[in-house]
Amino acid sequence: MADRPHTIPGLAAAAAVALLGAATVALSGAAAPRGAEEIIRTVPTTASYGAHLLFLTEEPHQAGTPRNMRLADYVRDRFLDYGLEEVTFHDTPALLSFGRAAAAEVVAPERVALRLAEEPCPADKDSYLYRDPGQVPFHGYALSGEVTAEVVYANGGSPEDFATLERMGVEVRGRIVLMRYSEPYSYRGYKVFMAESRGAAAALVYSDPQDDGYARGEVYPDGPWGPMSHVQWGAILYDWKGPGDPFTFHWTKHRDGVWVEGRERDRQLPRIPSMPLSPGNAAAILKQLRGPVAPSGWQGALPFTYHVGPGPAVVHLKVDNDERIGTLRSVIGRIRGREEPDRWVILGNHRDAWIYGAVDPSSGTAAMLETARALGTALRAGHRPRRTIVFADWDGEEPLLGGSTQWVKDNAESLRAGAVAYINVDSAIAGPRFEAGATPALAGFVRDVTRAVNDPATGGPLHDAWAAQSKGGTPEVGTIVGATDYTAFQEHLGVSCIDMYFDGPYGVYHSQYDDHGWMSRIGDPGFYYGATLARLWGIMAWRLADAAILPLRYSDYARAALGYIDAVEAHARPAPMPRLERARAAARRWEEAATALETRLDTATLPPADLRGLNDALLQVERSLTEAAGLQGRPFYRHLLVAPQPTYREEYLPRIWEAIDRDDREAIPRHEEEIVKAFDRAADILRRATGKLAAPAPGAASGAASMKP
Amino acid sequence: MADRPHTIPGLAAAAAVALLGAATVALSGAAAPRGAEEIIRTVPTTASYGAHLLFLTEEPHQAGTPRNMRLADYVRDRFLDYGLEEVTFHDTPALLSFGRAAAAEVVAPERVALRLAEEPCPADKDSYLYRDPGQVPFHGYALSGEVTAEVVYANGGSPEDFATLERMGVEVRGRIVLMRYSEPYSYRGYKVFMAESRGAAAALVYSDPQDDGYARGEVYPDGPWGPMSHVQWGAILYDWKGPGDPFTFHWTKHRDGVWVEGRERDRQLPRIPSMPLSPGNAAAILKQLRGPVAPSGWQGALPFTYHVGPGPAVVHLKVDNDERIGTLRSVIGRIRGREEPDRWVILGNHRDAWIYGAVDPSSGTAAMLETARALGTALRAGHRPRRTIVFADWDGEEPLLGGSTQWVKDNAESLRAGAVAYINVDSAIAGPRFEAGATPALAGFVRDVTRAVNDPATGGPLHDAWAAQSKGGTPEVGTIVGATDYTAFQEHLGVSCIDMYFDGPYGVYHSQYDDHGWMSRIGDPGFYYGATLARLWGIMAWRLADAAILPLRYSDYARAALGYIDAVEAHARPAPMPRLERARAAARRWEEAATALETRLDTATLPPADLRGLNDALLQVERSLTEAAGLQGRPFYRHLLVAPQPTYREEYLPRIWEAIDRDDREAIPRHEEEIVKAFDRAADILRRATGKLAAPAPGAASGAASMKP
Repeated sequence: MADRPHTIPGLAAAAAVALLGAATVALSGAAAPRGAEEIIRTVPTTASYGAHLLFLTEEPHQAGTPRNMRLADYVRDRFLDYGLEEVTFHDTPALLSFGRAAAAEVVAPERVALRLAEEPCPADKDSYLYRDPGQVPFHGYALSGEVTAEVVYANGGSPEDFATLERMGVEVRGRIVLMRYSEPYSYRGYKVFMAESRGAAAALVYSDPQDDGYARGEVYPDGPWGPMSHVQWGAILYDWKGPGDPFTFHWTKHRDGVWVEGRERDRQLPRIPSMPLSPGNAAAILKQLRGPVAPSGWQGALPFTYHVGPGPAVVHLKVDNDERIGTLRSVIGRIRGREEPDRWVILGNHRDAWIYGAVDPSSGTAAMLETARALGTALRAGHRPRRTIVFADWDGEEPLLGGSTQWVKDNAESLRAGAVAYINVDSAIAGPRFEAGATPALAGFVRDVTRAVNDPATGGPLHDAWAAQSKGGTPEVGTIVGATDYTAFQEHLGVSCIDMYFDGPYGVYHSQYDDHGWMSRIGDPGFYYGATLARLWGIMAWRLADAAILPLRYSDYARAALGYIDAVEAHARPAPMPRLERARAAARRWEEAATALETRLDTATLPPADLRGLNDALLQVERSLTEAAGLQGRPFYRHLLVAPQPTYREEYLPRIWEAIDRDDREAIPRHEEEIVKAFDRAADILRRATGKLAAPAPGAASGAASMKP
Repeated sequence: MADRPHTIPGLAAAAAVALLGAATVALSGAAAPRGAEEIIRTVPTTASYGAHLLFLTEEPHQAGTPRNMRLADYVRDRFLDYGLEEVTFHDTPALLSFGRAAAAEVVAPERVALRLAEEPCPADKDSYLYRDPGQVPFHGYALSGEVTAEVVYANGGSPEDFATLERMGVEVRGRIVLMRYSEPYSYRGYKVFMAESRGAAAALVYSDPQDDGYARGEVYPDGPWGPMSHVQWGAILYDWKGPGDPFTFHWTKHRDGVWVEGRERDRQLPRIPSMPLSPGNAAAILKQLRGPVAPSGWQGALPFTYHVGPGPAVVHLKVDNDERIGTLRSVIGRIRGREEPDRWVILGNHRDAWIYGAVDPSSGTAAMLETARALGTALRAGHRPRRTIVFADWDGEEPLLGGSTQWVKDNAESLRAGAVAYINVDSAIAGPRFEAGATPALAGFVRDVTRAVNDPATGGPLHDAWAAQSKGGTPEVGTIVGATDYTAFQEHLGVSCIDMYFDGPYGVYHSQYDDHGWMSRIGDPGFYYGATLARLWGIMAWRLADAAILPLRYSDYARAALGYIDAVEAHARPAPMPRLERARAAARRWEEAATALETRLDTATLPPADLRGLNDALLQVERSLTEAAGLQGRPFYRHLLVAPQPTYREEYLPRIWEAIDRDDREAIPRHEEEIVKAFDRAADILRRATGKLAAPAPGAASGAASMKP
């Protein structure tokens, strides 16, 4: 694919400032950055991306397995080959969970043995996974045990679903609760927790064809959706109760170096057996349920009427998971910054997969390797960026966001002072539809950078393809709150984050079929999107690392915050809640202060020596939106504006949101005051930065950064 | 069930006037009508209703079969037993269609023979229907023939669905088009016509479990929905091109009395083979279709991804229908009116069924027999109503609305002059949820009468149960436009109509399973609703026949007409259309004239001799909303405000609606003028009636009807 000549006709002010600022600073000695972007755009190739992907997906590589350690070596070797600096391993001990054996059968009314393995499909060699009897679809951290009990069907296992069962008089205590993975995504661990906390004996979570199977479209190998035997593996750690404090939980290391399990299981770990099921196996159980007909909305696409039970279907299930302390090995590499080596732009992706993980995460790992190759090539050609770029190949994301969280904790002080932004890519490619989320200050930057690479399908700028699929024609940058490796950066430290991927119909998430066959034939034939993402990621990193002035626009953020205030008021309805007018007024003050600075930056000139002070102020605005105390019961979550719910749905102004949820209305004014203070802190930082800017001077010295595009 | 004492606390003015008017008129010599209503409410019993239903549903009774003739005798004998007068048969020759044989198989890629019969279910003796090899599920009037062709799936077979196929480049010409019965109801005949008019070789119409099967709830015999082998029989006559002109179509009677088929098949008759299919058989075909994945909304609840084809599924089908001229035998009985025998209140229900027809129509036939017993008992007790009540047990509704249409044509002059109202009940009972539709002038009357009977489930007034299920708490009276026996009355003559039934989940429509087992175990165990409907129908008939002043409120109708104007303007969107302000102004004039009369009726007194003139005026208002010319291409449809589309969906101001559909915008002003004239005719009739009313006089003579409740 040829890239069209690089033009910046529609660049928003801040991004243009960033670019031109960099160009001006270049006069003080470094090589021309336009050349850097050209290199970054042309180095990543589909062939090289494909070679990485093939190696990464050759075998299952769960965190803690020898194969995943072997892949750490592969990543380290590539980082070294490509010229990255200070390449190291970051090792973390963590409790890991491995499926050792599992069995399930319907024992009554009609006995049906369930074959838990996913079926092979002849055209796909990887799909013969279960020839190895050690491969068992399982829920990471489910309690091992054996249960025989009547089954109750609880739809998606949400609090509302359990409330419905209660209204219907259907008791789940002592029973096996069968729930479905839901669409949109809701964290499976919270489903199991709901069942456990209501006294269930065990949980089963299955994939309904309505959500990711034949009712959505063609199933693999004919199409992207999940066939009848596919199983969604996954961890069910109660991670909202942590996370990771410590990742060894109730295990401790004795003097002889041996890890010993404590007597009481950590509260983050489930206390009932649980197992994922294929739609086919769920059908065998559901078909034998009676009792009330499933309420409206609970019927899925299996070919019979769903009932909630209890029984008469009785299931016997056996979960045998091996929990042991293992090592998470993240691979870290850098390109040291030319002028501000202590200011970091971090790129991250996890390496560990549930099985082959072609989409999740190896498409991202392959892209990161290509991005590293691109930036390393630029470095060798003399393009060293102003700031440091850190490459982080995380381990243990799937079980517990382990590698990234621990690295953030271990580097908290450096990151608080110097993290410019964290750009995460988890599953990079599941189709051709670009999606991005960001801390709102970076939304405009993300949009602008997508003008610099082309969309494989249209051949035109990715920006335009993205805009065409968005409502209103402006590319939609989503809100991000958690569920992957940016969580610790954004929620714990207040670092500005970006998360991005190419999406598409994808029904084989966390199953055997998320493999090289799926990706090469269905998800990204020819690997055009993989190479595109590598280019985009590289240019994003370069611009953030090399910009004279960081493209953080807090006027956008303040306007987003006004939307958060609306959202939290809506969340309170229909119960009465005083309108958060003080918070609104503070957000407007923040917006004004940000706008004043941004207007000034369009016209002011600034000696290079002042740039660092200005940029530090911009970094600290995001930090100022956190408070050390964290959320009630979840101290890790320190951000005042957004947090993930345990289901990973977003919540806004989380302290107020959760006060509403626990009906503690009296706490709301206090929490509003905290928000007001945060907004005023942010505004204050921006005002002081504005004050330090020189007024526009005609004929500014050529050694100064011109702010005007 | 005990009825509570009859009170009329909340009666709307017109209905109260009707009652009290009658009471006052009684002073001039007849027996007390309150006694009549008591009799009518207490005579119908669940036992007697159940006995009728059992006899009626004992065997299949399609129009034209000996069994349906035997049931005509049964109805006639009951009418005579119960004391009805002038009991006669009304016979009509009509072309009828009978399934003689049918076969279908998938011949490629994988051969699958289809078993067309519905499966027996052990608990239900009637479900062994197909032990008689002469029983064949079929489409009435489908062309006989044999076709082998590739299949295309066309979703619900609507014009939009065929347009989608065209956009996709999927050609239906020469192919077999597989469509699904749709929910909400859309006439199957129009689906087949769509396929035929696009060159299809044949049509298959199947029941998707999403619409009436397991995805809706329990299937028979465990619940009300359709099992996998159920088939929806039904006629596919292109009746919007007629109807019935004549019902013998291209057949003519020779001098020797033999009917001979003409050379050219009538345009109302399909010219391709067609067949209804069970979900199970449709699955066998759909599963083997490939080509594009079915567009959004086309996927049903069968357990695989739907494709549109064409092929590779190739189906061979053979339709062998026997078309012959038979006799439709409607049974007519009367209770002659005491004072105005030429003014008729007509009650109608059809007798003919596709198979056993427990819901459709025998629940209505059994109810009519109980209503006849109730009114006959009242008559014998001396309660002869002011006007004539006509009982009509129609034949040939299922194939072609034959009996009712022909009777209307044969009695058009008497009906134009003297029909007060027609109250239709088709399928009386499919569950416990009361539903009613009416010409808007009768909506208030229908609501009021439901206060006079009790709802079996709540024990309180049916009115209140109905209100509780309606939005806003006011019982919702629907718009009626066609699809059953009131069509000729309302659409051709402009007679005010009511159509009512108890609805519920019902997935066995027109299948073998719509039988006594379904009704007695699922639809109406104990037959409480059947008896309730008989009571309601009887009281409605009595009040309309005996009211001093007819409860026709045209202020309600004029307000409804304003809504029709809005609806037709909305139908034109997004294309520009001048607003129908002249029609709106005329509707407001009509509303004013109606309100003036209704206000006057609340206070005026009127000598009995003037009542007939007033009532005739009220009748003629509805008539004035028709024009002899009828709709373009459908001259039978003469009503200016409502008509059925060929799908049986409603259309408003049909001349304008259809002008929009054929993009003939220039015709709209002319048609608006016709509407204006009709509204002005209506207003004029009402104004003249108001003018004739005497001003309120203190101490009016006791021989006069007091209008004030």
